[in-house]
Amino acid sequence: MTIIMTTKIEWRTLASEKKAKQLASIPKEWLNQLATNIPPPTELDVTSYPRACGLLDERELDITESDVTSLLPRVASGEWTALEVTIAFCKRAVIAQQLTNCLTEIFFERAFASASALDEYFKRTGKVVGALHGLPVSLKDQVRIKGLDSTIGYVSYINIPAERNAVLADILESQGAVLFVKTNVPQTLLWPETHNNIFGRTLNPNNRSLTSGGSSGGEGALVALKGSPLGVGSDLGGQVTTSILTLVYWVTDFIRSFRSIRIPSACCGTYGLRPSYGRVPYGGCANSLEGQDSILSVLGPLSNSIDGLKLFMKAVIDSKPWMQDPLAVRKRWNEEEYQLADHGGGQELCFAVLWDDGVTVPDPPILRGLEMTKKALLAAGHKVIDWTPLKHAEIYDCILAIGNAGAAEDCSVVVAVSGEPLIETMLPNALESETAFKPSSGTSVSAYQLWQVQKERRTLREEYLRHWQDTVAVTGTGRPVDAILCPIASSAAPPHGTTKNTNYTMIWNALDYAALAIPVSKVDQKLDVKRERKTFYNSTDQSQYEDYNPATFANAPIAIQVVGRTLEEEAVLGMSEIVDSALKTRRAKL
Amino acid sequence: MTIIMTTKIEWRTLASEKKAKQLASIPKEWLNQLATNIPPPTELDVTSYPRACGLLDERELDITESDVTSLLPRVASGEWTALEVTIAFCKRAVIAQQLTNCLTEIFFERAFASASALDEYFKRTGKVVGALHGLPVSLKDQVRIKGLDSTIGYVSYINIPAERNAVLADILESQGAVLFVKTNVPQTLLWPETHNNIFGRTLNPNNRSLTSGGSSGGEGALVALKGSPLGVGSDLGGQVTTSILTLVYWVTDFIRSFRSIRIPSACCGTYGLRPSYGRVPYGGCANSLEGQDSILSVLGPLSNSIDGLKLFMKAVIDSKPWMQDPLAVRKRWNEEEYQLADHGGGQELCFAVLWDDGVTVPDPPILRGLEMTKKALLAAGHKVIDWTPLKHAEIYDCILAIGNAGAAEDCSVVVAVSGEPLIETMLPNALESETAFKPSSGTSVSAYQLWQVQKERRTLREEYLRHWQDTVAVTGTGRPVDAILCPIASSAAPPHGTTKNTNYTMIWNALDYAALAIPVSKVDQKLDVKRERKTFYNSTDQSQYEDYNPATFANAPIAIQVVGRTLEEEAVLGMSEIVDSALKTRRAKL
Repeated sequence: MTIIMTTKIEWRTLASEKKAKQLASIPKEWLNQLATNIPPPTELDVTSYPRACGLLDERELDITESDVTSLLPRVASGEWTALEVTIAFCKRAVIAQQLTNCLTEIFFERAFASASALDEYFKRTGKVVGALHGLPVSLKDQVRIKGLDSTIGYVSYINIPAERNAVLADILESQGAVLFVKTNVPQTLLWPETHNNIFGRTLNPNNRSLTSGGSSGGEGALVALKGSPLGVGSDLGGQVTTSILTLVYWVTDFIRSFRSIRIPSACCGTYGLRPSYGRVPYGGCANSLEGQDSILSVLGPLSNSIDGLKLFMKAVIDSKPWMQDPLAVRKRWNEEEYQLADHGGGQELCFAVLWDDGVTVPDPPILRGLEMTKKALLAAGHKVIDWTPLKHAEIYDCILAIGNAGAAEDCSVVVAVSGEPLIETMLPNALESETAFKPSSGTSVSAYQLWQVQKERRTLREEYLRHWQDTVAVTGTGRPVDAILCPIASSAAPPHGTTKNTNYTMIWNALDYAALAIPVSKVDQKLDVKRERKTFYNSTDQSQYEDYNPATFANAPIAIQVVGRTLEEEAVLGMSEIVDSALKTRRAKL
Repeated sequence: MTIIMTTKIEWRTLASEKKAKQLASIPKEWLNQLATNIPPPTELDVTSYPRACGLLDERELDITESDVTSLLPRVASGEWTALEVTIAFCKRAVIAQQLTNCLTEIFFERAFASASALDEYFKRTGKVVGALHGLPVSLKDQVRIKGLDSTIGYVSYINIPAERNAVLADILESQGAVLFVKTNVPQTLLWPETHNNIFGRTLNPNNRSLTSGGSSGGEGALVALKGSPLGVGSDLGGQVTTSILTLVYWVTDFIRSFRSIRIPSACCGTYGLRPSYGRVPYGGCANSLEGQDSILSVLGPLSNSIDGLKLFMKAVIDSKPWMQDPLAVRKRWNEEEYQLADHGGGQELCFAVLWDDGVTVPDPPILRGLEMTKKALLAAGHKVIDWTPLKHAEIYDCILAIGNAGAAEDCSVVVAVSGEPLIETMLPNALESETAFKPSSGTSVSAYQLWQVQKERRTLREEYLRHWQDTVAVTGTGRPVDAILCPIASSAAPPHGTTKNTNYTMIWNALDYAALAIPVSKVDQKLDVKRERKTFYNSTDQSQYEDYNPATFANAPIAIQVVGRTLEEEAVLGMSEIVDSALKTRRAKL
C-alpha cells in the first residue's frame, strides 16, 4: 500500500471530495423521495422513520424486517430473489444514512450484480451457493473490498483502493452474502464513539443526541434501523485522548479505553458478539496499532437476533478460515459445545452477576437491566449468584499500557501524511482545531518495558482463570460459574463526546473471553431515577454519577453482556439464547 | 518470586553447592555400582553402555526398552507395578546422567511415593488413574514442580523453589504420570546447545564430542539413552551471541537463532514434536524473554516413537488444559483430523521436500536423509514434489529482530543478580571469563519499532500461507501440498560450540507450523562424503561447508522434519506415522 503525500492544505478538500463522492453513489431518485421526509435534527428518536418515510413498499418492509433465519429460507425457496432483497436493504440503508450518517463506502451497483449472479445460479441449478445465499451483509470500514477505500477515518487513506478482498469478505461472498455498504468509524479506530474528519459523526437512532458508540458505531446504527440484517464490526483498540496524565506504567496517557462491537450494540439496541482472538479471520483488514500482537482486535457480527450471530459464526467457521488467514484458529464449529456439553446440557445453569467492577458504579438503568435478567433467569430455573471482580483496575491499567506503548506514534505517523488534525475529543464542535497532533517527546517506551507489562498481563489472566475455576466451590452445580452477566458500559449511550470509559467491555478483551451483547430494555423515566450516592471510587465515577439524569438518556437502550471463556463462542451463543429467551418470557408475562 | 541479591563473588559457590546437592540426590549404591564401569571421556559412542554397565537387570532392561504403548498396558494389567517401572527408569536416568550430564533436578523419593500411590490405587480399585498411569515422564528444567528449583541455567535462580506446579506438571500427574527428573538447558535458554554455569554441558550419547542440541538438550540425551520413556521439551528462544553485527532491523545482534525440541531430537536420534502455540499448556513454567507475546515458545514431547508423542498430546489435550491455562487453545483432540480427513484419508498424499532454504545448503548426510525419505514415500505410493521456499531469509531476520528487541536487557537483568558471566559462546573452555555481560548502550528499540517488525511478520505469514495454498495447482491431488519434508538443521549434531544456525527449525516457529522430528539414519563415512561446492550463499554457508567432514560427525543421527500447518498437530502425527512406516519398510527391504 502506498500513501501519497499531500500537503496540509489539501486535507479538507480531500475529505469533502470523498464525502461528495459518497453522496453521488446513492441513487438520486431515492434521495429525492426521501428529501421531503427528513425529520428535523430536533427529532431525536428516528426509529419509526424507515416505516413512515414511504421509500419502502410493504414487501420491502417485510423483507427488511425479517430476521435472518426467516429471510434466508424465503430466498432459498425462490419466494424472494436475492436482487429484491438486496434492493430493499440498500434503500433502507440509505434511509439509515440520512438519519444517522452511518455509512462510508456505498457500492450498490456491485451488490446488484452479485445478487443477480446468485439469482441466476439459483435459477440454473435450483441450489444456493452457501449458507448466506442472498443475504446482504454490511461491513465495518476496516474490512477491505477490492477496488474500494478503507479510510478507517483517516484522510491519509483516501483514494487508496484495496488491491484484494480481506479474507472475511472473500469468505462471506463464497457463502452467498451480498456485500453492499461499509460503515462509519472514528478517526484512528480508537474511540468508543464514531466521528471522523471525512464522513462526520454517526448518530444514535434511538436518540440522536446520544452516541451510537464505537468504533463500530456505523454498524450499530445501521443494524438497529434494519438497514442491514447482519453487520460485521470489530472489537478492540482504544479511546484516544491527547491529555497527558500519569498512568501506572508510562507517562503518556494516549489511550484511555478500548473499543468494541458490544458498545455500539448496547448503544443502538442490537445483539453483538465479541469472539475470541482469531475465531473470525482478520487477515487483509485495515487497522490501527498494527503489529501490536498482544491484545488482538477481533471481528464479529451484529444483528437483530442471536440467530443472526450464530448463522454468521457457523458460516464463517465452516469455511475453514485458517486455510486463508494464518491467525485464524483451526477450530471447527463444535455443535456439542453449542449444545452446552460443558455446561450440563444447559439445565440449571449457574450465572454470576458482576454488579460493580470497583472502578465505576453503573447507572440505574444498567443495574435495572441486570436485575431484570437475574429475575428472568431465576424464573426459568437457573441459579444466579454474585460475581466478585478480581483486580479489574490492575487489568485496565495493564492493557492500556500495552496499547499506549506505541499508539501515539502510530496515529501521528498516519495523520502526518495528510496533515489533518488528530481528533482530540468526540465532543461536538471540537474539530475546528488545525493543530496537527504532536506526540510528547520523551515518552518512548522500550520493547523490553513493553514485555514486562505483557508478562504482568499474562499473570493477571492466569489469576482470573483460577478465580473463575474456584467458583466450583460455591455454584452447587459441580461446575464453576457457567457464564458471567455484566454491564456493557457503566451508562446507557451517553451524549456525544461524554463517554467516560469502556472498562466493562475491555476487561474481556484483556482476558480474551467471548462476550455477547443482549438488549434488555430502554431507559425509563420513572423507574430509572437517580439514586443518592455520597462516596465514589474516583473522580470519573463521581463525574458519571453527577452527569446521570434519566432525561438525558431518554429512550436509550439498556443491554447486558453474557461472558464465557476464551474460544467458547459456541457455548456463549447457546447460553445467550437461554438468557434471551428467559427475558422474552418474562417480558411476555408482564 | 523473589530473587535474593547476592554478591558477584558468591556465584561460583552457589553453583558448586547446587551441583553437589544434585549428586547427593542420587542413591549412593547406584553410583558405587556404576563407578567401576564409567567409560573414559575418549569413548564417544556410549549408547550401548546402559545395557552393558550392569546396573539394570533383565526385567529393568525390558521395562526401559519398552515403547510407551507396550509399557502402559503392562502396568494397566498389573504385570508391572508403577514403582518397579519408576525404579528402572530412575536407574537408567542415572546412567544417562553419568554418561552425558543431562539432568538438573533429581527427585526419586518423590517419584517413588507417587508410583506407590498409583499402585495402591490400582490395587484398591482395579483401575488406572488416567492415560499415563505409571509412566515416568521427564521434564525440561523450565517446567516448575512445587518445592523444586527451575534455574533454567541461571545462578540467579538457584534456591528459589516453585510455589506451585506448572499447569502441565499438574495435568501429567492427574493422568498418572510419575515425574522423576528435570533436564538440562543452556544458560538463558537461548542456545541450540546445552551448557550452563551450574550443571555444565550435556553431551551427545551417540558421539560425546558432539552437542546434544538445545535448548532441550538434556531431554534429547536422556530420552535417546532410554533414561525416560517420554520427555517434555520446549521449542523457541534464540541463540545468544554478544557480538555486535548489523541486522536488518536493529543494531544489536544478540540472538542469532532459535532453540528447539526438534534440534535435540535430531542431534540425539529421538522423535520430537513442536506443537503450535498454546496446544500444550505453558502456564507456570520458568522462561526467558517473558512477555514477548509475538513468537511464543511451546512445550512438546520427545520420545522414542511417534506413538509416544501421540499419547502425550492426546492425554494432555483430553485434560482440557484451557481450563487451567488461559493461553491454552480450547481445541479438543480431533480424531478426524488424526485420521487425515483434510488429507484424503491418507491415501496418495503429496509431500514437498525443502532441499535448500537459499541461506544454508544442508550437509551431505542431511540431503541423504531427505532422499531416503523421498524414495520410501514414492515406494509407498505417495507423491513427492519439491518445495519452493518463500522469503526464508526475510522471515529469519524478522523473527530475530523481534527476539532481539528486548533479549539483551532480559538476560542481563537476570545475570546481574548473581554476577555470573553471561556465556558468550558454547565452545569448550570458553567459560572462564569473569566479565559480566554489559548490553551495548543505545541499542534500545521502541515498542512502536517492534510493532512495525511484528506487522511485517504477519504479512510474511499471510504470504506463506497463500504460497502453500497455491500448490493446489501442482499436486494433482486436488489439495495443496499435504506436508513439507525438510532438514531439521543444515548439519547433523556438530562439535560443541559450532552450531552455525537454526534456520531450518525457526522458520516453522515464525510461521507457527506444527513440525515433527523423525530419525532416519546415521552419518555414514562412505555414503556421506564431502561434495565439491564452489559458490556459497554467504560466509556462514561457506564456513559450514568447510567444516564438513564425515569423520567429525561419526555416528551422528540424521533426521528430517514433517511440517504441517498451524494447530494441525493431529494430522502431522498421522502423516508422520505414514512417513515413519514408509522409512521402516524401506529399511527392512534393504
